[in-house]
Amino acid sequence: MGNVTRVTIWNEYRHEKVHDRVREVYPDGLHAAIAAGLTDGFEVRIATLDEPEHGLTEEVLNGTDVLIWWGHMAHGEVSDEIVNRVYQRVLHGMGLVVLHSGHFSKIFKKLMGTSCDLKWREAREKERLWVVAPGHPIAEGIGEFIELAEEEMYGEHFDIPQPDELVFVSWFEGGEVFRSGCCYTRGQGKIFYFRPGHETHPTYYNEQIRRVIANAAKWAAPSTRPYPKYGHVPVPLETIKPKD
Amino acid sequence: MGNVTRVTIWNEYRHEKVHDRVREVYPDGLHAAIAAGLTDGFEVRIATLDEPEHGLTEEVLNGTDVLIWWGHMAHGEVSDEIVNRVYQRVLHGMGLVVLHSGHFSKIFKKLMGTSCDLKWREAREKERLWVVAPGHPIAEGIGEFIELAEEEMYGEHFDIPQPDELVFVSWFEGGEVFRSGCCYTRGQGKIFYFRPGHETHPTYYNEQIRRVIANAAKWAAPSTRPYPKYGHVPVPLETIKPKD
Amino acid sequence: MGNVTRVTIWNEYRHEKVHDRVREVYPDGLHAAIAAGLTDGFEVRIATLDEPEHGLTEEVLNGTDVLIWWGHMAHGEVSDEIVNRVYQRVLHGMGLVVLHSGHFSKIFKKLMGTSCDLKWREAREKERLWVVAPGHPIAEGIGEFIELAEEEMYGEHFDIPQPDELVFVSWFEGGEVFRSGCCYTRGQGKIFYFRPGHETHPTYYNEQIRRVIANAAKWAAPSTRPYPKYGHVPVPLETIKPKD
Amino acid sequence: MGNVTRVTIWNEYRHEKVHDRVREVYPDGLHAAIAAGLTDGFEVRIATLDEPEHGLTEEVLNGTDVLIWWGHMAHGEVSDEIVNRVYQRVLHGMGLVVLHSGHFSKIFKKLMGTSCDLKWREAREKERLWVVAPGHPIAEGIGEFIELAEEEMYGEHFDIPQPDELVFVSWFEGGEVFRSGCCYTRGQGKIFYFRPGHETHPTYYNEQIRRVIANAAKWAAPSTRPYPKYGHVPVPLETIKPKD
Repeated sequence: MGNVTRVTIWNEYRHEKVHDRVREVYPDGLHAAIAAGLTDGFEVRIATLDEPEHGLTEEVLNGTDVLIWWGHMAHGEVSDEIVNRVYQRVLHGMGLVVLHSGHFSKIFKKLMGTSCDLKWREAREKERLWVVAPGHPIAEGIGEFIELAEEEMYGEHFDIPQPDELVFVSWFEGGEVFRSGCCYTRGQGKIFYFRPGHETHPTYYNEQIRRVIANAAKWAAPSTRPYPKYGHVPVPLETIKPKD
Repeated sequence: MGNVTRVTIWNEYRHEKVHDRVREVYPDGLHAAIAAGLTDGFEVRIATLDEPEHGLTEEVLNGTDVLIWWGHMAHGEVSDEIVNRVYQRVLHGMGLVVLHSGHFSKIFKKLMGTSCDLKWREAREKERLWVVAPGHPIAEGIGEFIELAEEEMYGEHFDIPQPDELVFVSWFEGGEVFRSGCCYTRGQGKIFYFRPGHETHPTYYNEQIRRVIANAAKWAAPSTRPYPKYGHVPVPLETIKPKD
Repeated sequence: MGNVTRVTIWNEYRHEKVHDRVREVYPDGLHAAIAAGLTDGFEVRIATLDEPEHGLTEEVLNGTDVLIWWGHMAHGEVSDEIVNRVYQRVLHGMGLVVLHSGHFSKIFKKLMGTSCDLKWREAREKERLWVVAPGHPIAEGIGEFIELAEEEMYGEHFDIPQPDELVFVSWFEGGEVFRSGCCYTRGQGKIFYFRPGHETHPTYYNEQIRRVIANAAKWAAPSTRPYPKYGHVPVPLETIKPKD
Repeated sequence: MGNVTRVTIWNEYRHEKVHDRVREVYPDGLHAAIAAGLTDGFEVRIATLDEPEHGLTEEVLNGTDVLIWWGHMAHGEVSDEIVNRVYQRVLHGMGLVVLHSGHFSKIFKKLMGTSCDLKWREAREKERLWVVAPGHPIAEGIGEFIELAEEEMYGEHFDIPQPDELVFVSWFEGGEVFRSGCCYTRGQGKIFYFRPGHETHPTYYNEQIRRVIANAAKWAAPSTRPYPKYGHVPVPLETIKPKD
């Protein structure tokens, strides 16, 4: 991977076109605010749903170390072919950082093997993300918690496999909790789900949130290693004794 | 679930019809040998690929606590509709015990979110399954290891998510190792993958192998608990302060 | 283990003697309220700090399937010899359910390998324990959450190893969260830490809390299996080729 | 931590002084061979048992990002005071890489909370370490397996807590398997146990073994983050409603 991590930010980029409130908060798109946080040691590219192949051509993906995914109202419009392409790249080592409503994206559900369902409420309530894995590289530079004055609520039960590592747990003003920062490995690829970022709140301008996403992108960058060999290996490494 | 665990053994049941060697080892089908090991506290039913709906009707699945799955040469013939039906039942609590070549079944790959690929070799070699989780209920009554005089080899890397609990690791005569007993949870359902059981070897007559499968069926039996509520919860549990 | 689980409840039993408020809530001791919840399939015994050997003789421990531990103001008075005896029994398969302030007991810290430190506050605040592992046997019969009108707050970071399975996460009125139900294995023994139960609140009369403790005691009961053999095994299972 | 990882290699350094065979293989001490593999981005210091404070003064430990530990015949001579000092440093973020017979060191047993016992045999047998976590940074640059022509055997059951991540599983010529590369977190510190390295075999000259140790030292380097605050937090973050 070298010293520079090549990140592609995939944004559905629909809310910003049709909802005034979202355009007001993110005039250049959610992706622009996310990209602005990736300043040090990243090479950033943008891809969006309405581009040909959703902007995720073979060439783009092969040149991507870590894919960041934000989607919501148009999960169903993402073609299965592109989902499979991203899936294969993850198994071959590409990192994937799934943000907020991306919990219901085809690619996240396919990689998790569960419904990825949850509770939700839009009530401009306070969220406090507590660090529960203080030595984890994704929590580097983060205080005891991150406080967001207003966010959409996501509540348990969150139908995901038990995370390999749980980094954040959210407290919500309305009475719920949520596993907000979850690490997984699938094949050679590392996956981080990070909860915050509803499209009507300025969450992606928050410096601590940006730091988490940058940390996650570094953490998820692939190791340099050939893809494992699978299939038939007729010749054993050791002599097998003839049986009767 | 009560005191009796209702098990459905799903067997592809094709090798037994077309390969003499398999019919010789399992004259009544692999399912019969597996069923013979579930003697104490089980109610056993059989379902096979060539029955209508592969024998897995809504009624059958709703009356199943734990589904045991053996498939190999005809994974592709299992209809997606039935796979989705089984998948939903697992998320709602039905246990699933996947045997041997079932690693490549549609249902296992869908629940794992990975390729489930591995190395393999048919060379009548010795396998020794070591217990690495000695307090786990699936290892109850099992010695330090189970030795099988002849089995097909499955070797690492096995492309699965890291197991929630790893119970067995296999040593193979030809030089490979394999994570042979792997526990997962998906939704409310518990899943156990168990490696041994190639169709040309009398593995399912082995008392220790039978004990593991019986233990796994008991472990995977569902807890009594309503399915979680998901979706919109407009009314918070606590008062949310009006913002600005 | 048979059908009956033999539980020993160890209670420090000091607060009840010196604090009026505690005696008022638990006139017969915290242990009596805990014992009253273990009605079905349990054989219950009580042991307390001020008995000879703290009530935990070799004989008592050898006849115990699961030890429940409540301690607080006198952790330092528990003798290292008894701690080591309990420790050995856990490694050999005895289950251990550690309640509330037991997080700072010698035995829990020894088994965890960490400081087991946390944040705390006594402010009569509301606690809501959310189930995050809906298929886990310890959550059987429990609703989406357990609500306690008044409890002591314990807050993250809780300095424990990442749990093998996380079953409950608490929301606190004052703004904190906590990993409140944590499963571990050490040797052949299963361990469950369960947060609630400050001595001035009637928590152990709550039916849902009692259900969790009963479930945990069933879950932690040992499997029947000889202790593994360790040490020198001069004779290999397979022939080792002479080297040059 | 910056770009350079400050490693202290702690070697018991006794076998080399009393056993001709060991001195022959490691004339400058095991530590010298281990140090020779840490060439790129490391600042390496050596500490040994017979130095004052075993070479692990407060100053040395405070200037150490990652401590590598090799010990065997004199575990009992390591003072409890120094063990506690190392323990505190790990909880505060220092990485720890425990090699081979260090499984029985006081510091490793204290951090694991188990006996850390295992089976062993010295029979000059072949070991093959298979990578089971192909995307893990500790496996970077490593092939499908590492083969060692002659090593001491360590066999399961290995009495450790289930690893947070399992990276290597060993196959032994004599018929055993072993979980050979195990990741843990304790407090803010990351721990890696790596099996190979018996004092009579030239294992630490093997380039792949050296690569694993270097990868592990990079992986275990601490994140920059203040130590969490623990203890009494009388003032809540949110208003707590007065009860009755």
